[in-house]
Amino acid sequence: MSQRWVYGFHELDEATEAVGGEWDDVRGLLGGKGANLGDMTRLGVAVPPGFTITSEACNAYLEAGEKFPDGLNDQVSSELRQIEEMTGKTFGDPTNPLLVSCRSGAKFSMPGMMDTVLNIGMNDEVVKGMIEVFDDTHFVLDSYRRLIQMFATVVMGVREEPFEDALADARQKRGVVSDSDLTSEDLELIVQRFKGLVERFAGREFPSDPTEQLTMAVEAVFRSWNGKRAFAYRNAAGIAHDLGTAVNVQTMVFGNMGADSATGVCVSRSATTGEPRLEGDFLMNAQGEDVVAGTRQTSTIDDLAREMPALHAELKNYADALERRYRDMQDIEFTIEHGKLWLLQTRDGKRTAQAAVRIAVDLVSDGIINKTEALTRVTPEQIEFFLHPQFDAAAKNEAKSDGRLLTTGLNVSPGAAVGIVALDADLAEKWAEERQEPVILVRPETKPDDVHGMLPAAGVLTSSGGRTSHAALVARQFGKPAVVGAAEIMIDMSAKEFVVNGETVHQGEWISIDGTTGEVFSGQIATKVPDIEDPWLMGLLAWADEARELDVWANADYPDDAKRAVTLGANGIGLCRTEHMFFDPARLPVVQDMIMATDRVSRRDALDKLLPLQRGDFADLFRAMDGKPVVIRLLDPPLHEFLPDHGELTTKVTDLKIRLTSAKDLEMVDDLLREIEEAERLLQRVEALHEANPMLGLRGVRLAIVFPELPAMQIRAIFQAVAEVQAEGVEAKPEIMIPLTGNIAELQPMKDLADELAAEYVEHHGVPVEYKFGTMIETPRAALTATELAEIAEFFSFGTNDLTQMTLGISRDDAEKNFLLEYLQRGVLETNPFDTLDAGGVGKLVDMAVSDAKAVRPDIKVGICGEHGGDPASIALVSRMGLNYVSCSPLRVPVARLAAAQAALASQEEAAAE
Amino acid sequence: MSQRWVYGFHELDEATEAVGGEWDDVRGLLGGKGANLGDMTRLGVAVPPGFTITSEACNAYLEAGEKFPDGLNDQVSSELRQIEEMTGKTFGDPTNPLLVSCRSGAKFSMPGMMDTVLNIGMNDEVVKGMIEVFDDTHFVLDSYRRLIQMFATVVMGVREEPFEDALADARQKRGVVSDSDLTSEDLELIVQRFKGLVERFAGREFPSDPTEQLTMAVEAVFRSWNGKRAFAYRNAAGIAHDLGTAVNVQTMVFGNMGADSATGVCVSRSATTGEPRLEGDFLMNAQGEDVVAGTRQTSTIDDLAREMPALHAELKNYADALERRYRDMQDIEFTIEHGKLWLLQTRDGKRTAQAAVRIAVDLVSDGIINKTEALTRVTPEQIEFFLHPQFDAAAKNEAKSDGRLLTTGLNVSPGAAVGIVALDADLAEKWAEERQEPVILVRPETKPDDVHGMLPAAGVLTSSGGRTSHAALVARQFGKPAVVGAAEIMIDMSAKEFVVNGETVHQGEWISIDGTTGEVFSGQIATKVPDIEDPWLMGLLAWADEARELDVWANADYPDDAKRAVTLGANGIGLCRTEHMFFDPARLPVVQDMIMATDRVSRRDALDKLLPLQRGDFADLFRAMDGKPVVIRLLDPPLHEFLPDHGELTTKVTDLKIRLTSAKDLEMVDDLLREIEEAERLLQRVEALHEANPMLGLRGVRLAIVFPELPAMQIRAIFQAVAEVQAEGVEAKPEIMIPLTGNIAELQPMKDLADELAAEYVEHHGVPVEYKFGTMIETPRAALTATELAEIAEFFSFGTNDLTQMTLGISRDDAEKNFLLEYLQRGVLETNPFDTLDAGGVGKLVDMAVSDAKAVRPDIKVGICGEHGGDPASIALVSRMGLNYVSCSPLRVPVARLAAAQAALASQEEAAAE
Repeated sequence: MSQRWVYGFHELDEATEAVGGEWDDVRGLLGGKGANLGDMTRLGVAVPPGFTITSEACNAYLEAGEKFPDGLNDQVSSELRQIEEMTGKTFGDPTNPLLVSCRSGAKFSMPGMMDTVLNIGMNDEVVKGMIEVFDDTHFVLDSYRRLIQMFATVVMGVREEPFEDALADARQKRGVVSDSDLTSEDLELIVQRFKGLVERFAGREFPSDPTEQLTMAVEAVFRSWNGKRAFAYRNAAGIAHDLGTAVNVQTMVFGNMGADSATGVCVSRSATTGEPRLEGDFLMNAQGEDVVAGTRQTSTIDDLAREMPALHAELKNYADALERRYRDMQDIEFTIEHGKLWLLQTRDGKRTAQAAVRIAVDLVSDGIINKTEALTRVTPEQIEFFLHPQFDAAAKNEAKSDGRLLTTGLNVSPGAAVGIVALDADLAEKWAEERQEPVILVRPETKPDDVHGMLPAAGVLTSSGGRTSHAALVARQFGKPAVVGAAEIMIDMSAKEFVVNGETVHQGEWISIDGTTGEVFSGQIATKVPDIEDPWLMGLLAWADEARELDVWANADYPDDAKRAVTLGANGIGLCRTEHMFFDPARLPVVQDMIMATDRVSRRDALDKLLPLQRGDFADLFRAMDGKPVVIRLLDPPLHEFLPDHGELTTKVTDLKIRLTSAKDLEMVDDLLREIEEAERLLQRVEALHEANPMLGLRGVRLAIVFPELPAMQIRAIFQAVAEVQAEGVEAKPEIMIPLTGNIAELQPMKDLADELAAEYVEHHGVPVEYKFGTMIETPRAALTATELAEIAEFFSFGTNDLTQMTLGISRDDAEKNFLLEYLQRGVLETNPFDTLDAGGVGKLVDMAVSDAKAVRPDIKVGICGEHGGDPASIALVSRMGLNYVSCSPLRVPVARLAAAQAALASQEEAAAE
Repeated sequence: MSQRWVYGFHELDEATEAVGGEWDDVRGLLGGKGANLGDMTRLGVAVPPGFTITSEACNAYLEAGEKFPDGLNDQVSSELRQIEEMTGKTFGDPTNPLLVSCRSGAKFSMPGMMDTVLNIGMNDEVVKGMIEVFDDTHFVLDSYRRLIQMFATVVMGVREEPFEDALADARQKRGVVSDSDLTSEDLELIVQRFKGLVERFAGREFPSDPTEQLTMAVEAVFRSWNGKRAFAYRNAAGIAHDLGTAVNVQTMVFGNMGADSATGVCVSRSATTGEPRLEGDFLMNAQGEDVVAGTRQTSTIDDLAREMPALHAELKNYADALERRYRDMQDIEFTIEHGKLWLLQTRDGKRTAQAAVRIAVDLVSDGIINKTEALTRVTPEQIEFFLHPQFDAAAKNEAKSDGRLLTTGLNVSPGAAVGIVALDADLAEKWAEERQEPVILVRPETKPDDVHGMLPAAGVLTSSGGRTSHAALVARQFGKPAVVGAAEIMIDMSAKEFVVNGETVHQGEWISIDGTTGEVFSGQIATKVPDIEDPWLMGLLAWADEARELDVWANADYPDDAKRAVTLGANGIGLCRTEHMFFDPARLPVVQDMIMATDRVSRRDALDKLLPLQRGDFADLFRAMDGKPVVIRLLDPPLHEFLPDHGELTTKVTDLKIRLTSAKDLEMVDDLLREIEEAERLLQRVEALHEANPMLGLRGVRLAIVFPELPAMQIRAIFQAVAEVQAEGVEAKPEIMIPLTGNIAELQPMKDLADELAAEYVEHHGVPVEYKFGTMIETPRAALTATELAEIAEFFSFGTNDLTQMTLGISRDDAEKNFLLEYLQRGVLETNPFDTLDAGGVGKLVDMAVSDAKAVRPDIKVGICGEHGGDPASIALVSRMGLNYVSCSPLRVPVARLAAAQAALASQEEAAAE
């Protein structure tokens, strides 16, 4: 007996047994689609009967030099007979014909594989019989011409154009715009012309034998496995070439058979909000493609509930069953043929970020999945949705209904943006400033020269370029919503306008772009910031907190940020940048006095003025974080950052001197001379502080070593703030962090200073001050000497921004302007190392340092602060390295909480697998 | 029987047996000096007889609460008797008195230990007897007053001043300036006064019993072991506190006993040149201290040869014997008493760098040491001597004889400098430029504000500060000769002069300073550059080449440098910086054209012009290095370095615009407008190329990736140069080196490019081009990903300058101006990491990278280039890590050759010890 090559959808159990019981092997044998159709059938869902030709048959066919293996023809015939029995129809019988579709279906879905051929089984005779039986000449002839057209193009390899030309010709003659308005006479002629086209372009007649049609279609699917595009795709996606594809042959059902027929699509829960109710569209008396084509006004599933309540209830039952079976929200295609509901396909539905969160949480409430699974159903990137303004869903739907959707491009940088169109960067910059209106920069593509116009823009839209184009990279970098590669947009610079799908948008007119979906609309659409306190999100994040191993802290410099961070779930402040407190306009003059001081006494005077202000800053932070740790980094940036810019000062001096030449009265001369002297004194100091590479200059602990009164003031302020808030019953947990350490000999004097001031505290207050002492790890040398640093540091915080700059030798500001984007575009780098931690270099250093430090001080706390702390891929990386916490900006805390949970789950899974 | 506490110098064998035979233990027991005196005695050298009281006796004395151990007194008496027998003199016998000296002598020489007491054994009776016997009242009384003075101050703890006052008083009364001009009557009075001073200040009489004198002196030595300074010194130097000190008691001999007596010092070989002949000075009829005091005109050893040839021959014999015994050039103290030559002390002699080299080589020729030992007798720092100008030895001696030696300070930065005195930095800068005369900056100390005056100065002299003072660090950094801490110099800024030892030097007058010795002279002294091709140096370096494991290559950009490097022993060029060829004034305009090019075509045009020039550069290098490898680094610096400075351009534009406002005729206006346009175009490009941190910016391989036509031009030029010189029979060994690599994805396209151009070469020439492909390791990431890079790199060259900047996060230029010197001064850093490779950080990275790379590619060649390549400590470090070569500036090649040899020998020694 020959091998079994064919399984009916109703014979899934036999197929399962044949491969030994594993579902994955079933999918290998029957393909994803075939296995699914079988599974739905077994579930009792009304799936049009059919059968699957196995992928093994495909391989056998290809191996034998494109020859059907023994027994295949017989088995197909036998299965056809069974379907005929089930449906009461007969393949090729004009009086009661069985029509079938034929589709490819490999284990993994794959572009480049053969598409669908519908209506197999029709020929002139069958058409005649059907016209009699169905009493709908137009439908039958239309189905026939569709078969010929699809068969010719998909199976016989004829080009599409001559068929389309013929249709256009007929429409023109008849004076109509839609194919559906052609008369039956027209269609009869078209069928004749199509047959002629087949003969002319394929070199043979359209096969009238239904069995030959089916055989040819199956062979076409088999051969398409080795098609050029499918082959290249498998190479790129790493799919084995010897899997083969299965073929699904399925009874045709028709939604266009009158008022009791319909076709539609629906999702089991709202794809927009996640609400648990059927949502979708259908068309009465129509075929599937009509729904997709959008040429007729569809009805909603709610209409179906009103018009065909029983069928709606049946659909809802099926949807529930399928959800439970596939354990996710389902996207279902259905057809109603003469009042009978058939399900053609189901798959996991696409959804918005908001819906993804609610669905994951609701599926747990419904007992369909558990919390752990729910955590993997939402990506950290989807949490980001809640951070960006979005279009109001109703307003956006309205815009769509109003036909204001201009085109859709690539969704490369999420968020919604509304603004007036500027077609060049200079204008974008100018308008953003002068008109005080948001601007959308619209360009064919962007270049480094355009960045000055991208930064002030609300959003960016380009007509060319892909996901790694300059525009995409820059926009993501700076968090600007962007749509790129919207190829339908034709920009006419001379006319100062662009044309898209026949519509013209002039420079200065409003458009709205959705970087989350890639949609481009004319006019303004209302936006709103999503509710970050969405109850489903809060619920999901609470589960994330149970699952994660990493602590999530926030970078916050002000009490308001700190409060916000706590609301968003931060367990502490991982980085308080004290310099931000120095930039306060009210304090800056005092800070400048300190810098301009030429001796210790006047420097100390200025610091004495700053001390109570810093104490107040810290006290407020402790109050906001009551009981949670607050890591305070001592002053880090180079001093020149607190002084005016060199260029500004030079210009000022020049201006003053020019005014001096035209000054007429002596008082004015005196004033000017005084001003000049003052400005020149400042200038001199700025010049003295000038550094060729400030990144690698006098900052961080180096400042503290050179001006020890500076850290002394800050540490005193911290300790005094502790005393202040403790009196109010607030629990302060300060952690003093030294920046830019590279040498134990730098850290030790800071530790000694802290000890000394802590001793002062005991003397004054009679009780010790509780604090931790630690260091940032920002220089490669710090990481390399972790063993030594851990001797006195109770915690490490990897400042991965600077550590990346130094380890890679890349100055971030310069590089993003220069070569970094080019590196990403050329694929020299896969990800921007300032977005995602460079595992091979920086990650290796971090890993070494953590191991070394823990060997010396097993209870040392290690974390990262800086932007990587909010990046999911980086969080996964550091979670694997055994870090204790990440610290990120307050808004990204929810993203980090989920990413940390997923990282922990992935590790557990890995551990379990071993 | 009690323990043996005393050994005569002639009883060394017994002492050796007592400790079990090890010389080191003998030195422990008898102290270094005692062991040596014994050893000389055994060698047959005429050492005045004496004995050593062991360090064990010292310990026993201290442990017992400052009480002599049992038997010590008896043993001392017994040894004294033996000496009396040997000398025929008797201790305390007025008719034929034995006088002795008493000195401390611990295992390690140590400041703070008790000094010498001479003439022990004299008292009033003995004096009387001696006057009769010696018939020299003056000498005897002078010896007596010396004993009382030394005994009082050294043993009894009386201050020096009252004794000096008494002497001064006597000189004044007699109207003489020198003690030797006092009459015997004066001396008799002085002895009486001295005795009175002892009674008054020590509270007891000067002991007249010789035995009591000796006992007290021995006890004083014992007690000085626990003196405050000795204790602190042992703590600092890590010497154990329980070693104790020995005491040496030795017969006095007198060089001041008439015309047949003399005293002197000599070295067995010239300390200046190393020439193998006795050199030294002596005084007839004098005591040792007279030679040192310099109050009388000494005679040279050559005079001795003329005047006492037999004694000179005896001295020469002893010197030869001692050299063979101690296997080094000896510095000998001798005394002739009544025609009998006695040797009082011998030790390894100090010598100049030049002498050190010659002596080491000659000792090998003389069969005294072997080549390996010779290599350890010269420090790499001494090789540096040959790199700096030095004072002409004769001219310097003459200056000394003329009394022009003003003072001696700390020799902190080697080399000789002659210049006019400038007392402030501004003036130093001004005079150096305006007067075109060399300037010596003389300051109390220097600060960062003075650097602008130090750089143009020929040398630096300060009156305060130590080896890590700002002046010392900056001077060493920039290779300026410097003497610091010359405390005798009193600077009077208001009088514009300084006073030193009574002499006044005005601002603008000439002085000469020797940074190698610390000497400061008035007036000018002729300088000369030492002969780097000194035959002894060449010989020593040839042995170094046999011993070393590291290859020594040179950094050279021009053929002349390359030739010089080969002469100095370089085996290859480890770094040819091609950018230096670009800076050639004739080419710079073409280079600028290339940079200003806005499209590929005009950029390629400029590159096409550069190609033949580069080909010529490389061909010349290959010719100079015929058969030796030449590592060519592709263009490295940021492009803006080839354009005019931003400030200059701004000033130019401003000037042109000002001129425009006053331009009167149209032609001039047109010209100015053109110039302005051109300058603004340049300015725009300079601004576009501006980077916040150019060190971490668009340079190295990044340039090559962004402008691939640049490396293509350079590699083509290399290959064409190979073809050009091969036709002449020259063997070219090019190695293409990619700068600033941080990622395998950067290196791969460069490798592909080289392969492609090599394939072009084969096509054109029919034979393959031989070359190596490698990369610099300058970013920490490159070191961290050595495993990947070594997959395609055939060699690594660690660019330790940049690697240090990035690993430590320190911009060299900025840091040396700012905090680095302060770090060195405060001891936060022990050495400047840009001078000596930072072992804990950078060294760790290098070590990891070397191991990783060798695991992947065992035959990979790894080296360092940059300034560390010429630094002995860094060479020792990388030699231990198994690097293959160092590459340094041509002049430092000899230094590196010796340092490499010493590193190899140290490793072998370590390995042998294990």
